[in-house]
Formats: sequence, C-alpha cells, structure tokens
Amino acid sequence: MATIGDIGLAAAINILSAFAFFLAFALLRIQPINDRVYFPKWYLRSLRSSPSHSGASIRKIVNLDFRSYVRFLNWMPDALQMPEPELIQHAGLDSAVYLRIYLLGLKIFVPITFLAFAILVPVNWTDDALSNSKVTFSNIDKLAISNIRTGSERFWAHLVMAYVFTFWTCYVLQKEYATVAAMRLHFLASGERRPDQYTVLVRNVPPDPDESVSELVEHFFLVNHPGHYLTHQVVYDANKLAKLVEDKKKMQNWLDFYQLKYSRNKSQKPSMKTGFLGLWGERVDAIDFYISKIDQQSKDIEAERERIRKSPESIMPAAFVSFKSQWGTAVCAQTQQSRNPTIWLTEWAPEPRDVYWENLAIPYISLTVRKLIIVVAFFFLTFFFMIPIAFVQSLANIEGIEKAAPFLRPIIEKKLIKSFIQGFLPGIVLKIFLILLPTILMIMSKIEGFISISALERKAAAKYYVFIFVNVFLGSIIAGTAFEQLDTFIHQSANEIPKTIGVSIPMKATFFITYIMVDGWAGIAGEIFRLKPLIIFHLKNFFLVKTEKDREEAMDPGSLGFNTGEPQIQFYFLLGLVYAVVTPFLLPFIIIFFGLAYVVFRHQIINVYNQEYESSAAFWPDVHGRIITALIVSQLLLMGLLSTKGAAQSTPLLIALPVLTIWFNRFCKGRYEPAFVIYPLQEAMMKDTLERAKEPNLNLKGYLENAYIHPVFKGEDDDTDEVTKDWEQETLLVPTKRQSRRNTPVPSKYSGSSSPSLSEVVQVKP
Amino acid sequence: MATIGDIGLAAAINILSAFAFFLAFALLRIQPINDRVYFPKWYLRSLRSSPSHSGASIRKIVNLDFRSYVRFLNWMPDALQMPEPELIQHAGLDSAVYLRIYLLGLKIFVPITFLAFAILVPVNWTDDALSNSKVTFSNIDKLAISNIRTGSERFWAHLVMAYVFTFWTCYVLQKEYATVAAMRLHFLASGERRPDQYTVLVRNVPPDPDESVSELVEHFFLVNHPGHYLTHQVVYDANKLAKLVEDKKKMQNWLDFYQLKYSRNKSQKPSMKTGFLGLWGERVDAIDFYISKIDQQSKDIEAERERIRKSPESIMPAAFVSFKSQWGTAVCAQTQQSRNPTIWLTEWAPEPRDVYWENLAIPYISLTVRKLIIVVAFFFLTFFFMIPIAFVQSLANIEGIEKAAPFLRPIIEKKLIKSFIQGFLPGIVLKIFLILLPTILMIMSKIEGFISISALERKAAAKYYVFIFVNVFLGSIIAGTAFEQLDTFIHQSANEIPKTIGVSIPMKATFFITYIMVDGWAGIAGEIFRLKPLIIFHLKNFFLVKTEKDREEAMDPGSLGFNTGEPQIQFYFLLGLVYAVVTPFLLPFIIIFFGLAYVVFRHQIINVYNQEYESSAAFWPDVHGRIITALIVSQLLLMGLLSTKGAAQSTPLLIALPVLTIWFNRFCKGRYEPAFVIYPLQEAMMKDTLERAKEPNLNLKGYLENAYIHPVFKGEDDDTDEVTKDWEQETLLVPTKRQSRRNTPVPSKYSGSSSPSLSEVVQVKP
Repeated sequence: MATIGDIGLAAAINILSAFAFFLAFALLRIQPINDRVYFPKWYLRSLRSSPSHSGASIRKIVNLDFRSYVRFLNWMPDALQMPEPELIQHAGLDSAVYLRIYLLGLKIFVPITFLAFAILVPVNWTDDALSNSKVTFSNIDKLAISNIRTGSERFWAHLVMAYVFTFWTCYVLQKEYATVAAMRLHFLASGERRPDQYTVLVRNVPPDPDESVSELVEHFFLVNHPGHYLTHQVVYDANKLAKLVEDKKKMQNWLDFYQLKYSRNKSQKPSMKTGFLGLWGERVDAIDFYISKIDQQSKDIEAERERIRKSPESIMPAAFVSFKSQWGTAVCAQTQQSRNPTIWLTEWAPEPRDVYWENLAIPYISLTVRKLIIVVAFFFLTFFFMIPIAFVQSLANIEGIEKAAPFLRPIIEKKLIKSFIQGFLPGIVLKIFLILLPTILMIMSKIEGFISISALERKAAAKYYVFIFVNVFLGSIIAGTAFEQLDTFIHQSANEIPKTIGVSIPMKATFFITYIMVDGWAGIAGEIFRLKPLIIFHLKNFFLVKTEKDREEAMDPGSLGFNTGEPQIQFYFLLGLVYAVVTPFLLPFIIIFFGLAYVVFRHQIINVYNQEYESSAAFWPDVHGRIITALIVSQLLLMGLLSTKGAAQSTPLLIALPVLTIWFNRFCKGRYEPAFVIYPLQEAMMKDTLERAKEPNLNLKGYLENAYIHPVFKGEDDDTDEVTKDWEQETLLVPTKRQSRRNTPVPSKYSGSSSPSLSEVVQVKP
Repeated sequence: MATIGDIGLAAAINILSAFAFFLAFALLRIQPINDRVYFPKWYLRSLRSSPSHSGASIRKIVNLDFRSYVRFLNWMPDALQMPEPELIQHAGLDSAVYLRIYLLGLKIFVPITFLAFAILVPVNWTDDALSNSKVTFSNIDKLAISNIRTGSERFWAHLVMAYVFTFWTCYVLQKEYATVAAMRLHFLASGERRPDQYTVLVRNVPPDPDESVSELVEHFFLVNHPGHYLTHQVVYDANKLAKLVEDKKKMQNWLDFYQLKYSRNKSQKPSMKTGFLGLWGERVDAIDFYISKIDQQSKDIEAERERIRKSPESIMPAAFVSFKSQWGTAVCAQTQQSRNPTIWLTEWAPEPRDVYWENLAIPYISLTVRKLIIVVAFFFLTFFFMIPIAFVQSLANIEGIEKAAPFLRPIIEKKLIKSFIQGFLPGIVLKIFLILLPTILMIMSKIEGFISISALERKAAAKYYVFIFVNVFLGSIIAGTAFEQLDTFIHQSANEIPKTIGVSIPMKATFFITYIMVDGWAGIAGEIFRLKPLIIFHLKNFFLVKTEKDREEAMDPGSLGFNTGEPQIQFYFLLGLVYAVVTPFLLPFIIIFFGLAYVVFRHQIINVYNQEYESSAAFWPDVHGRIITALIVSQLLLMGLLSTKGAAQSTPLLIALPVLTIWFNRFCKGRYEPAFVIYPLQEAMMKDTLERAKEPNLNLKGYLENAYIHPVFKGEDDDTDEVTKDWEQETLLVPTKRQSRRNTPVPSKYSGSSSPSLSEVVQVKP
C-alpha cells in the first residue's frame, strides 16, 4: 500500500515532468519558426501572417526578445481571458461547449471535495478500524471509508453525503443542460444564414422505372410540400473520383519534393526507381515521371467526372432537398413522408462540411442488419479483444519471425535484440491495438451507417466509453480480463456483483491516483506541447514547402477529437463520483486534472484547433447521459460496499438514489433533449419572418443550389458558374469556418482509416 | 403427477360444463325476451327493433318455433360467416383486429403443434430416462423433455425445434404486423371524414397576463401555422358539472322506479325515508320528493353551466385546434411548437368519444412526478401486494369482527357461520382484490395522466400483463409470493435464474393444462352466456322500463375490455411458447382455447359488444411486443432447462436466439410501428386532394366547431344551434358509432372507478 509520502513523491515527479512540458512549450511557442505549429488557428482565420515579411532573417527563426521569455507562463491567463461569446464566435459552439465539460467537472467536484474533506475525512480519521486490525495500511486508508469499523453508526455520514453529492451533481447537471440548450438555440437563432437551415436530407428514394431520381424527388416534394419546396441536389457516388483526386494529390507532393530538391541542387537531376517504395525497378527522371503521371491522373479524373455526370448509375437514391422557408424545412425534416417508413426518410441535412458522403445511399434493411452485426461485433471486441491479441502475441515471437523471414535470423539471434523483442513485442502489440482502438470504433460506426461526421464521432465515443468502463475501470478493480469478469458476473447473483466490485474499490484508490497523474496530468501537458505536429511541420517545411500556400497546407491544426477525448474525460467523472464517498483523498487530483485540462484546451481551442464541422453542441445529451451513468454506478457500488461493511440497514435508503437519478434523467431528457434533436416551429417561423424583413429580395435558390455538392466537385466550375462564386463570396462574410476549408491541410485524425473521408478530400483543388 | 387419464377426465368435465353453458346460451338466445341481451348490437345499429310490434303476447317472451331449437348450434357458423371488411364496417377496426389476436394464436400454434407432435413427441417417447429413474411419472411426462436422459444427443432435436418455432413465430408476427399496419392505414384513408383527422390537442398552454387561453391559442397558431389554422375549442373544467348530471340521472332512475310502481298499484302512493339508504329519516312521498329533487338539481346544473361559461378559471390551459387540411394537422401534431418542450405540447386529438377529459390539464412537471410515483407504486403492488392482503385477512377474522361490531356476536358465534367465516373470509379478501385489480391498474394509469381512454386501456393492459407474469406465471412455477421470488432472484446469479425456473417448468405442465381448461375454456363459455347482463337487464326491464327508450338504455352491450382481456390472451401465448419445446402435450389445449375464443368473441363482437371508441388498432404494437417478450422468456427458460440437463454445449447456440429475436423486434418497430404513431404527409396530402375534389364547398369550420365539446354540454343547444345539428345529422351517415352514443346505456366497465369517466357521462340528455 502506498503511503501519502509515496503518493507525494509520485505527484512531485509528475508535476515536475508536466512543468517541464509546459516550460518547453512556453519556450518553443515564442519562437517565430514554430508560430504555425502553435497558432495555426489565427493563420486560418487570416488574422496572422507569416513573419517572413519583415525583420532580419534570424528573427524569423529564433525569438531574441528576452522580455518575452520572462512572461513565459502568460499563455495561461491569456487563454482564460477570451469571454465565452467571443470564443463561440472564434471557434464555434462545439468547442465552447466542449470546454464546459471540464468546467462542469470543476463545478461538480470542487464543492464535493470541500464537503468531503470537511465531513467525511474527519469521520474516517477519528475511527480506528485499521489500527485495530492487523493488515498493513497507509495514511490514505486512514482517511478512507476502510477505517470505519464494521457496523458502525458512522456510516450514516457516508449515506447522507451520498445523498448530498447526488443532489448536488444532479443540480449542477440540470443547470448545465438548461444553459447548453439555451446556448444552442441562441446559436441557431442568431447565427447567419446556413444552407443546412433550409435543407433536408432525403434517403431511400424508391426506384422508379419511369423517372430519374432527380425528377422523382422534385415531383414528390412538389406534390407533398407545395408552396415550400424550392430545389434539390442529387447525391453522386463520387467515392472513386475522390480516391483519384487523393492519389493525384500525393503525386503532386512527390513532384514538389523532387522539384525543391532540384532547385536546391541544380547539379543533379533527381531520379527514382518506379517499383514498390522506390526499392527496385527502372531508374527514371523523377520530375518527368511525376509530371507525366499527374498528367495521366488529371485525364483519368476528368473522364471519371464525365462518367459520373452522364451515367444514371452514379446517382445515389438520396438527395438534399431545399425549402423556401425554415418552417417548411423543419416540417419536412421532422415528419414522416410515406406510408412505408423505410422509404423517403427525411432528416435535417448536416452542415455541408459535416456530411459523410459514403453512407448516404444505404438502404433501410441493410441499416438494421448492419446495426445487429456491429452490436455483436462490439460485444466481442469489448469482452474478447484479448484473444486475438494473445494470438498475435504468440505469433510475434522469435520463432515466428524467424519462420516468416528466415533472412532476418542473423540479426534476431543477437542477444540484445533477442531480449528486446521478447520483452517488448507483446506489450507493443497491445499498445498498437489500443492506439488503433479509436480508429476501429470509428470504422464500426461508419459501417453502422451514420451520415454525418458529428454523429459518427458521437457513436464512436459511446463505444469507447463502454470499452474504457469495462476494460479500464472494471478491469483495474477486479484484476483479470473482461472475459473473465463477464464469466464471474454471469455466475454471480445480482446483489453480489456490486459487492464484489464495491469491496475492491477502496483498495484501488492509490492505483487510480497514479493513473490520474500519469494519464491525466502528463497527457494534458503533452497535448499542449504538440510534439508530433511540431516535427511533421518542420519536416514538411523543409522538404515540400515552396510557396506561402504550401506552408499553409503544412500546418496541422488538428481538432478536438470528440470520439477519443470525451470518453477519457468521462472516465475522470466516473472515478470522481465513485471515490467521492469512499476515498475523498482522490478528489483533489481530479480537480487538478479538470482545472489543468480546462486551461490547456481553452488555449488550444483559441490558438490551435480548427474544427472540421459545427454540430451546435449536439453531443451534450451524450455527455449528460454518461455522467448520469457514472452517478448510478457510483451509487450501486457504494450500496455493495456498505452492505459488506455491516451497514445493511442503509441499503433500502440507498436504493432510492438510483431510482431518483434515473427519474431525474428522464425528466431532463423530456425537458431539454428536444432542443438538441428538434427545431421548434415557433423558432423557425420567427427566423423566417426576420429573414424576410432583413432581405426581402434574397435569391435563396441561388444560395442553396450548390451548397451540397460533393467536395470533389467543389471549385471545378469556379470561373464559369456565377452562382457558385456568388455563394462562395457570400460565405466569406459569415462567421462559419467555411473559409478555412479552402486552405486547411489534411487533419491527421482520420488518416488511419482506409476509406477516404471527407476531411481527406475536402481541400483538393484540381 | 396427473396421468393422461386424469387429464382426460378433467378435460371431459370441463368440456361438458362448457357444453352446458353453450346449450343454455343456445336456448336462451332464441327466446325473444332475451333478444336485447344477446343481440344488443343490432338494436344499437337500428337494424332490429323490439319484437313487441307483432304476434301474440306469449311469442314475445318464449320462442315456440321448434325448428329453431334444432339448429341451436347454428350461431357458430353464423359468427364465422361475416367477412372481415363487413366486420370492420359493422364493429370497427379495433374489434376486427382484436379478433386477429386469437387468429394469430391459431396461426402460430397449429403448425407448431403438428411439428412438435411429429418430431419432439417421438423423440421424447422413445427415450427412457423416466422408466430408469425411481421417481413416479405419468404418461404425459413420457411425452415431455423430462424423458430424455441427461447429456443425450437427442437434445439437438429440441434445440433445432426451438429455432424452427422461433423463426415460425417471428415470420407469422411479421406478416401479421404488416397486415394490421396496412389495415390501419387503409381504414384511416378510406373512412369518412372524422373530426380528429383535422384536430390537434394542444396542452400546457402557458399562462399569459394579457390574453385569455382562447385568444392566446388563436394567436399562436395563426402566427405559427398561417394558412393552415382554422378554428379551436377551449377545454372547460366540467368535472363538477358532469358529477351533477350523473347525480340527476340516478334520481331520475329512482323517480322512474317509483312512478312505475305507482302505475302498477294505484291504491298506494309509494313513500320512502330520506335518510341514508332509505333506512331512517322522515317518511315522504317518493314521487314528489324526487320530482322536487330533480328540479333542484336541474337548477344547480344550469347554474354550474353558467358559471363554467362565465368564469375564466374554468377554462383549462388546453385546447382542441383544428386545421384546414389534414396535411396541416399532421404537421402540427408531429412537430414541436415552442423552444420550451414542456409547453404548447401538441398531439393528434383522440376521437371525441375517446377523450379522457379529466387529464387534459396536467402540467408537464406534474406528469413526470406522477410517472415516478406510479412506477414505484406499481412495483410495490406487483411484488408486495400480499402484505396488505395478509393484514386485512388477519383483521377479517372472528375476533376482529366481534370487536368492530359486538352486536353481531350472537350470530357469528354459531358454529356453522363461524367455520364459514374462518374458512372463506381470507380467500374472499384475495378474490376481491383480484377482481378489483384491473380497476386499480386503470386508476393508476389515470393518475399517470394519459388523455385518451384507448391509451389508458393500453397502459393498464401492460401493467396487468406484468402482474400476471410475475404473480401467476412465475408464482405458479416457483411456489411462493412474488416478494420471496424477488428476494431469491436478487440473491441468485444471472445464469442461475433461468435454471431455477427452467427446471420447474416441466413439472408444472399438468397444472397449467388444468388452468387452461378451467380459466380458459370455461371462462369463454361463461362469456357467451352473459349471466350478469342477463339478470341486470331483466331486473331493469321489470322495475324501470316504461318506454322503448328506457328499454334501450337498460341494455348493457358492454365492450371488449382490452385492459383485462388482452393480458389474459397473452398469458396463453406465453404458456404455449414456453411449453412448445418442453411439453408439447399442452399445445392442443391452447389451440382449443384460441379456436373457441375466436368463435365466441366473433359472435359477441357481431351481436353484442358496442365499442366505446375507435382507436384504429392502435394497440397492435403492444400485442406484438408482448408476444416477443413471451418468445424471449421461453428461449431463456429453455436455455436454463437444457443447461441443467447436461446439454450445456447447446447454450451458446441458444444465446443467439434472444439476440436475433430482439433484433427482429427492433426491425419490426422501425418498419411497422410508425404506422401506428405517425400519419405520413403523403397520405394526408392524398386525402386532402380527394376531399377537395369530392366536396369543394364543404363548410369544414362548421363541421369542426362543436366536435370537441365536453359531453355534458352536448345536445343542450340542439334546437337552437344549426351548426351542431348539421354536424349531428352528418354523422348519421358515417360508419363510426357516434350514433350509438346517444342511446347507449352506461357501460359497466368503469363503474368501479371513483371519478366519473367519459363513458359514464357520455349519454346524458338533460
């Protein structure tokens, strides 16, 4: 058992390492050469330009203004100064509300910590169960519930505090839900005109022998929404085209690389081999090779583009239908069109940037089958993921490698390398799996068929949370694989399970404290340092960048990554709520995590991240629901723990807690969730009236006509199509970040997935 | 253990008693004097009139046509002859679809029975586990799974059959869901104009200091549904008025009674005492007393009516809003109006007859609290109902009665009476509770705040099913109270529970066979005999009836009673599915039940019942869902049973079954349920276009203006208000049964509830 001293030492080490990160960050960020790594957001918003225009050459690279080194921790107050409305204006509602999750953590846990230290810690400290027993114990345990004697009356204090904590959490949650709902409605109401406000996505258009999809859609909506229907855009199956464009872009990168190489060293024309990875094959002139390749690719792209436009098979049975008013749109999005509920499915169109194009044409029956498959697959992934990993680990040993690649034998047989492989390989296999996990979950969500990136991220986050809950939380408390746990739980009675887990909880407090420090504190400090984007930017800058535009593309601002970030935050909510009554000593560590994360992510959101889409905080119901889950888990586990402590008389009182919490959740769901799903007609009507008054002669049709074209078609008609140009110009005025799409580099987040996603094809300019 | 001979004897007794009922019914039904008891439906539809107009006096009472006695079983083919479309025309879609539940039972179980007897019975019979063991057994057990040796390969037959039965059940369920959904949509599309097609119920109208509810509603919908809004009717709080009217009606009955008495015996003017139950108080002339009382009551009613009309407090924050088109109505009913989802709640208005007026004004927050309270209360009712009953039983003993009413002591102390009380009283207390149970559940649903009678019945049915499942099904299999079961289950592991129940299942087969015969067969035979309405009609006929209209009111056609009937049918589905694999011998009894019930209820629906409302088969999703539940329960129990039989290797294969069943249910929910909840815009638009073409000059406003007035206001302006008259006349043409509302007597079903329900006040004609 770790003593307070041990924990203190670990904390000191972690604080020091975090401080080192912060220091490194503080020094690097004020070097002009790193400016595009640490402040890309400002470049994207065109509020900052490269420092190359003025000053001495050295000043472009190193900051020689020593006063700025003195103020090296100034970024913290800077990050906190921007007021929330400005933040929403600057980075969008999603980011602003994402920060509120950390703030919510502080709001919940700061009062709980004070109360717990004021009441529970003295109650625990003054009892003497541990000093009377013969087990070894640390001072931390003396502060915890373990120090209370079995059957003691003191458990009433914990019982009462469980109620107080629950009510406080629910109170804060309810306030927050109300605030976020109001923020969302205000954001939707006050924002400038957006195409998705007037557009409905209709899927599963039934096949018709006489009419094309386009005609069918037009006729259907002219008949069933007369006076409201405005126009529509069919969806093309442009997946192949997107791939071609993507390939061409890669070749362009290589061409740039060789051209730059040549321009730096004119004496030697760069050459390359045509075979795999340039390892073998004919040696050719690299620049000529890529120029001809790109030429060929351009022709292919043109041909494919022509094919898509001509062939009716490339039109998917889906369309974006636009309406004359938001009222008409709200009506169409929120009602059922046909008596067969599996065709003519309508829903609000996602933001154009948010559309996940590949999934638009999945028929209904396929969707339900996919859902079943993914549920089963996810179940096996969560509970049995260790089996394939163990299998790969068993293969990835010395003998396996020697068999697969006999020519490696002389190297492997060396003692140092051998022991390294034997020692690290199994761990590395697991680590690789865990790194790949978010991507795997994202692919699963994609298979499930959600049609917007925001929905994909939300669903992937839900899966990730379940995985963390089962494999990290339960897996740490009850040692053993998830499968073994499952086996135990099936063979245990319903009231035994919370007991089994509950009893182990106090013993694992020190483990989780260390976990919070290593994973939470250090992880956040690493986040701000941005090591990977820093290296990649400088590599690109050196090898590829020729023009200012290239430099812009070399920036990788990244984005929040809801699907990985949010479940990890939720894990801290879970730990905090579970340990609030049991081991209050853990709470300050959680508070430090939330405080630190809040500052760091606020800084990142202001200066770095560039959100790919804006879902107007559509994720809040998920956040709320998972905190409620954590609350209920904590109540059940406390019930289990107390019933083994001879405080069985308190169990009936504790049962009321989950019942009330579930009811509270239902209440919140009814009261606030509609704001995240539904657009009320009154709002729509108000917005319409306002629009009409402000701009009576607006050419809405022109505005919407090309809003939902597949990104690979974007820009191709820039010179010819007046309407598109008009629209593009207009968007320059609105504060959405569509501007950024024209010059944002590939966000790295999806590069792990095999299919080309929106984010990867979005910025192509043929 | 009962042998086949025992069961055969019991079956013979039950068949004979059922046959006696049928015979009695067949004889009574052809007596003209009982015509109104056994054929009220035809009177209500004005297709039959009293036989008093023609023929000799004796022929009015007794049927002397002996040929009709020969054909006394003819009612059975007669009942089956009416084709379904005519049945829908005659009795409404609800009744026709209700019959399909029995037909569904036959469709599911007839093939299953054949398969089970062809495959499972031989497999069971030819094994010899029982003859080798020392337990006593009967021939029934030799046909059951009990006869298979532990660990035998023969269990594969049962496993395969479990799959076959599941797939067959799902196939039939899916077909049926599709058929019923199509029937419903066709019924809605082809029926004549109904006020609820154009009307939305809006609740939780927010209070406004400047405008009355009526003005507020008008303004809100004029603004937010321009071009669609037509008119609205506010809802008055007429509960007190309804009570007054009800009281007056009772007095009128007494007056009629005394007047009839006087007219039969002119020599003596009837007198009565004014005190409680006429037991004490001043003796007065009964006719004069009631005439003056009724006079007073009429004045009170008039005053109350005036008060409601004048005072703004009697206007509830709810209104029925009508629209110009069904499209507009569908839009308003299926969208959210305000950004606050707890005000301006809109939903399709129920049929005027179906409205449950008392619940129209419950605010949102109160609804959620009520739901919580009812969930908790229902949980305690289900699992702990024995506690208060045991308490009452302990009070209701000899000593208790002697203490409460010492003057009864001499009677009670007599030996015979004493033993009677001691023997029967506890049983009677339980029996009274079980008789009251549907009423209790109905009151609980009313407290929950549903706003239509059909919804109330559906929710009460769901509760009743849970009660039956826990207390009859589980209670019979595992002896002991529900509370003891709950305790067992909490202390048992998740995979122990199906084992515990599964093992007991084969042993309880004979018990359930007897149950099916006594409760099912005899109950249905009793249903057709209609003993209670028979007696009550003749009593009323003798004491109250003066005119033809009185006689009409004395009829009690009753109605289907979804809240009590459907859960009982579902219990037979549950038994059939659970025993299909385990003890196929039970299946023929189920089939006889479904067949008999189908014929009997078809007869009753054609000749007797008069539905109070038409919900267009809105209950089918509930029916479907509960059969799915039964299917999953049967799969889990089979899993438990097989795992104790040494057939553990089959468990993984069996786990797939519930997963597939749940998925199938989700598929059906997505595919068919919307037809029962939502009205698609395409349909609405088609209907609108048709209406406009058929009747371009329809005065829709006039048609709708008084459709949703509280029933106690109905008819009061019959002579003055032209519009109402027009509408009333028009409804004579449509095949809804609104006509019957004007001359239907009190259905007995709700008389147990304390608050006056729609059905009780609906036919008042002041």
